[in-house]
Amino acid sequence: MTEELIQREDAGGIATLTLNRPAALNALSDAMIAALTDALARLADDRSVRVVVLRGAGRAFCAGHDLKEMQAARAQPDRGAAAFADLFARCATMMQALPALPQPVIAEVQGIATAAGCQLAASCDMVVAAEDARFGVNGVNIGLFCSTPMVALTRKVPPAIAFEMLTTGEFLSAARAREVGLVNRIAPPGHLAAETRKLAETLAAKLSAAVHIGKRSFYDQQGLPLAEAYALTGARMTENMLWRDTEEGINAFLEKRKPDWAD
Amino acid sequence: MTEELIQREDAGGIATLTLNRPAALNALSDAMIAALTDALARLADDRSVRVVVLRGAGRAFCAGHDLKEMQAARAQPDRGAAAFADLFARCATMMQALPALPQPVIAEVQGIATAAGCQLAASCDMVVAAEDARFGVNGVNIGLFCSTPMVALTRKVPPAIAFEMLTTGEFLSAARAREVGLVNRIAPPGHLAAETRKLAETLAAKLSAAVHIGKRSFYDQQGLPLAEAYALTGARMTENMLWRDTEEGINAFLEKRKPDWAD
Amino acid sequence: MTEELIQREDAGGIATLTLNRPAALNALSDAMIAALTDALARLADDRSVRVVVLRGAGRAFCAGHDLKEMQAARAQPDRGAAAFADLFARCATMMQALPALPQPVIAEVQGIATAAGCQLAASCDMVVAAEDARFGVNGVNIGLFCSTPMVALTRKVPPAIAFEMLTTGEFLSAARAREVGLVNRIAPPGHLAAETRKLAETLAAKLSAAVHIGKRSFYDQQGLPLAEAYALTGARMTENMLWRDTEEGINAFLEKRKPDWAD
Repeated sequence: MTEELIQREDAGGIATLTLNRPAALNALSDAMIAALTDALARLADDRSVRVVVLRGAGRAFCAGHDLKEMQAARAQPDRGAAAFADLFARCATMMQALPALPQPVIAEVQGIATAAGCQLAASCDMVVAAEDARFGVNGVNIGLFCSTPMVALTRKVPPAIAFEMLTTGEFLSAARAREVGLVNRIAPPGHLAAETRKLAETLAAKLSAAVHIGKRSFYDQQGLPLAEAYALTGARMTENMLWRDTEEGINAFLEKRKPDWAD
Repeated sequence: MTEELIQREDAGGIATLTLNRPAALNALSDAMIAALTDALARLADDRSVRVVVLRGAGRAFCAGHDLKEMQAARAQPDRGAAAFADLFARCATMMQALPALPQPVIAEVQGIATAAGCQLAASCDMVVAAEDARFGVNGVNIGLFCSTPMVALTRKVPPAIAFEMLTTGEFLSAARAREVGLVNRIAPPGHLAAETRKLAETLAAKLSAAVHIGKRSFYDQQGLPLAEAYALTGARMTENMLWRDTEEGINAFLEKRKPDWAD
Repeated sequence: MTEELIQREDAGGIATLTLNRPAALNALSDAMIAALTDALARLADDRSVRVVVLRGAGRAFCAGHDLKEMQAARAQPDRGAAAFADLFARCATMMQALPALPQPVIAEVQGIATAAGCQLAASCDMVVAAEDARFGVNGVNIGLFCSTPMVALTRKVPPAIAFEMLTTGEFLSAARAREVGLVNRIAPPGHLAAETRKLAETLAAKLSAAVHIGKRSFYDQQGLPLAEAYALTGARMTENMLWRDTEEGINAFLEKRKPDWAD
């Protein structure tokens, strides 16, 4: 194949994955879902990668599912029922691989992030957005409610805001998306890549094992009753305390010097 | 009866319910709760209604329970214990009927929405507020903590904000209510009805079945573990894909034309 | 002992607890955790206390755990494993005592609230912050991810914001902390104590029993399915209605006079 659907570039412990189907606004075709799922699986085992950036080539981050491909499945005897169920299952597996990845994942969003594209951004741990980026779950406009994108969206923004986005199909500006918790940082025009890199480098400079145990604990403790959440995280902090690099990190802090980490 | 406690007006697929007891700031008396519960039950089965607007007649949206009526129950041998338990149960049933309704419900709030009146607004899917509207759960001021209104409120706004409202009894402005996720849109003076209508018409123009399956999924998936939420919504999206109108909606989008919906 | 680690001052039904180890930025040493746990236990049974304020002496609210003390535990045969597990358990017990306290607790934050110090503020029901106060969970900077502080933080602010704070170690300003739901009120320079007192006095003027049953219900109903939350809070409101002071409070309101409360 002459051109990869997912391009990967590594530098300074940061792996950047680029959805590379710009003519289709990086739509999540079967091949794209397979390629991204595969790329994420390879990252999970790659000790050289400390931070992941997910971005889209061209003028949009991602416009969601590949509608032409979906319509084609209607030619099957069951009118596509099995194909659709399978598609949503594969897509959900891919989305869940993002919080499950050991490394933190930053979505870098320009242009639009719509439907499953908005879900993809919301499934990342953090989002850096261009000032003119827009977020929408607008399937309702074509009669297909964004029920699966809703899962990721409602775990990031307040319910009344999510409900409005889902039923009106209208866009959220980057500024409003930051207000409501979907976006972490907004980049001025022309500085999106630099702003994302700055955040990624900040994370890459931390003790990698600490970030990994932290990310895992973050999702594991979500929604647990307080006492259970403390039991789980107390055990994780004890484990974290026993690492040689953490002992050194605390000593360095107390001695006002840089830590000498093996990491 | 010469005047209905709940007035209903239908136009363009939008049913507007008006709490019509303005002299009592639309207090939720036994009769009002019964009338609203009944009106909602009838809407649930009414295929001609695509969107519901809930508003109050006069200068307030709703000032909560009818305190005079509640005090009268103290004359009973059990000092009102059974009557109060029954009242809160009937009220909770009415509040839960709002997210359970197939159609989206928009609260249109002017003046005050206090105690169970604030709960009523927070129980709707979305809220459009007049610029000078105010939201409060101020039962604490008279020694009756707003414990049931708290259920709806804490499912819309961050916990520290809800706690402050509940224990201080102080009002939230419409602007602050929008910041914290209780209000969706704010109307400039004199434009509340128009702003609500605009939002209602936007929703009424969508494929009704898609909005219905979406609203149901919205509440069904709330709070589920990620994998369960995706299993549920994946099945709903597959169902949604198999509708004739959705097939047509996607085709129309791909062909850049208006969909020809039977809906 | 010449100086108490926790100072308590009572006035007008408001108990103010001051973390009093300013030279160590009020770090949570074993002794400090024991003293605060003990102080909270005594407040729980003190009927004269209607509201609790928690503050720190000196230029910071609290800078988290006592790192020197923690490092010393590494000399033990198990390299501190048992000591660390015990420390996090005792700390979690203390943190959970704050929402479990009958009285509302207001954190008064100046300077920094970092790591377990940020957790301490987030574990209080409300936070009043100085305009230049800063909040951080910055253990990641020294290789010790703030896994237990995360439990309190993620129950107050949106997930993407919490994730960013935890993995970057960067501070939130008081203004941004208010936007995201961690801070309730911001005091202009020189007015922190006055602003906290104003909020505390507002709460102290309410019917104490109503505030107590309300706070308890607030945490008991969190995260319950809607029907269960209504069943629980409906029973609490019925109980609340049957109090003599609540009967009087409602009568006073209806008669437009001040209530004559025994409270």
